[in-house]
Amino acid sequence: MNKSFQPTIRDIAREAKVSIATVSRYLNMPEKVRKETGERIQRIIDKHNYRCNFAAKALATQRTKTIGYIIPAVNNQIYSECARGVQDEAQLHGYQVFIASAEYNRQREKQMVENFLERRVDGIILTVSDSMGDIAQKLYQEKIPAVNLFNKQGCLPCVSVDNVQASYDATKYLINLGHKSFAMLGVPFTASDRCRMRYEGFLHCLQDHDIPTHPQSFVQVSSNTLDCSEGVEKLMNSSNPPTAIFASNDLVAINTISALRRLGFEIPKDVSVIGFDDIPMAKHVWPPLTTVLQPGYRMGRQATTVLLDILRSGKHPEETIPSVQHDLIIRESSGVPPR
Amino acid sequence: MNKSFQPTIRDIAREAKVSIATVSRYLNMPEKVRKETGERIQRIIDKHNYRCNFAAKALATQRTKTIGYIIPAVNNQIYSECARGVQDEAQLHGYQVFIASAEYNRQREKQMVENFLERRVDGIILTVSDSMGDIAQKLYQEKIPAVNLFNKQGCLPCVSVDNVQASYDATKYLINLGHKSFAMLGVPFTASDRCRMRYEGFLHCLQDHDIPTHPQSFVQVSSNTLDCSEGVEKLMNSSNPPTAIFASNDLVAINTISALRRLGFEIPKDVSVIGFDDIPMAKHVWPPLTTVLQPGYRMGRQATTVLLDILRSGKHPEETIPSVQHDLIIRESSGVPPR
Repeated sequence: MNKSFQPTIRDIAREAKVSIATVSRYLNMPEKVRKETGERIQRIIDKHNYRCNFAAKALATQRTKTIGYIIPAVNNQIYSECARGVQDEAQLHGYQVFIASAEYNRQREKQMVENFLERRVDGIILTVSDSMGDIAQKLYQEKIPAVNLFNKQGCLPCVSVDNVQASYDATKYLINLGHKSFAMLGVPFTASDRCRMRYEGFLHCLQDHDIPTHPQSFVQVSSNTLDCSEGVEKLMNSSNPPTAIFASNDLVAINTISALRRLGFEIPKDVSVIGFDDIPMAKHVWPPLTTVLQPGYRMGRQATTVLLDILRSGKHPEETIPSVQHDLIIRESSGVPPR
Repeated sequence: MNKSFQPTIRDIAREAKVSIATVSRYLNMPEKVRKETGERIQRIIDKHNYRCNFAAKALATQRTKTIGYIIPAVNNQIYSECARGVQDEAQLHGYQVFIASAEYNRQREKQMVENFLERRVDGIILTVSDSMGDIAQKLYQEKIPAVNLFNKQGCLPCVSVDNVQASYDATKYLINLGHKSFAMLGVPFTASDRCRMRYEGFLHCLQDHDIPTHPQSFVQVSSNTLDCSEGVEKLMNSSNPPTAIFASNDLVAINTISALRRLGFEIPKDVSVIGFDDIPMAKHVWPPLTTVLQPGYRMGRQATTVLLDILRSGKHPEETIPSVQHDLIIRESSGVPPR
């Protein structure tokens, strides 16, 4: 752990009897350094096992070949799937991805963007609480290459399904099964504007089909724990308990099913539950989850392609990126309402 | 996207009519710059919304307050839980965590370590395919602060359960239920030395109880897809099909259950399945999974504490870190063998 094991560019320069600038030039543009000098520098680098200091290199080239990717939660598989896509596409083009998770916390989101910018990532892919908020605006105004994932709004290029339409479709499917009493469970809108858009689609669909809505039809769960017990208990003990629950994502849906089961309800016999994402686990839980599929891996690759295009061209895509196609995956957590 | 939106330290220096070194000194040790000069530099920084270039700062201070965390797979919740722990502990001490996933690929592991070192992270937490291999040895020899997670071997400080003992305990539980015919499913040992240690514990326990083992008792699944269909089919069609399957992790266990069910087997009536990790999903799948718990979140925090201690003291912990306590969580995927 002795500092001498990581010699600095200064040490190399001193021993080679040249300036720091010369060593830096040799590392970045070796052809601009006299052959003999270069060889002397290289011998000293080899001798000390000197690792090209990325900080020095970044200062010289203004490019770090690094992408920062900010996700809302590290334990939700939709973001892992997406991260795999981002990594695979970035790797193909010689970029390294650093992932940071804000755990639905606005303060952390800001801090992570600052950290990435200070470390001069070349671009940022992000899913933050508010895609029209401070962070997106700042990235836009400062002309930082950035792509917004999982919601289609705000000033940055967006790769996303149409959250409103997808939720409308899911709700309509439940209405077609015969359900008349609904609730939605989701994280606070301030933590996720995806959730707000999904609520919008849910509400529109109910209104279009003359199904009455109440302020209680949206039940908020903590974005940290996703614990649904309290919310589900209140819902099921209300004067008009729902026969169909739309959850803002699959993790919420899976927790909702657990909570319902603890209260003695059978799914889907007593209550239908539908999620959003189609995470890999959705087909393994019991009952297998009916859900809205968004292709996370593919979206991760696409967002990276868009970002790399911006890095190459120096400008945002000229046309709005079309919505990613969603799909309704019908499994066994949904059925006709009880008579 | 115009470069002029990110002025360099050179631009600031030129406009302030001082040297680059002076701007750098002002940014890092403002008290060492004359008040008037500092104020002039600050005005220009404010005017251009100049963001302190982290690369310049890192060159000056030799500390980046950054931890690199290399995980084997982004879609396995044990690593997400752990990443949450690493992040929470690092945050408490003003460190930023960058996560990179090697997807069980040795080449990527090496590349990621190099990338982190080039970017001068202060330390590395890692779970790699071989904790006694090149990477660990190199980090050790170069005295890079580093902590090994999820396996207890090699030269780096390790935070891990005792994989051998934990697997021994899980196997013994199955033996006590009355099982006499066993198999283990896991990723290739070259991709995960955790899996090799778990196989060792499994094998020892069978031998200690005079249960015959065959070369076929370990079935390898792809570390990318974790698809168990082929392996399970071969096992169940063999002359001595197992009544109990030990999976090297929960994801493998969940996929094994799916594959068994597709072949018409009931769990645990026909076959008991047991996993390793106790990921948050383990209790939600059907049947809820019997598994070995390792406390991922807590281990992430502990590994970070160990790393920060190394950063503070400049040396490795003097004593071996005791094993993290594992636990056997009995749920419904295991039971007595069929008669």
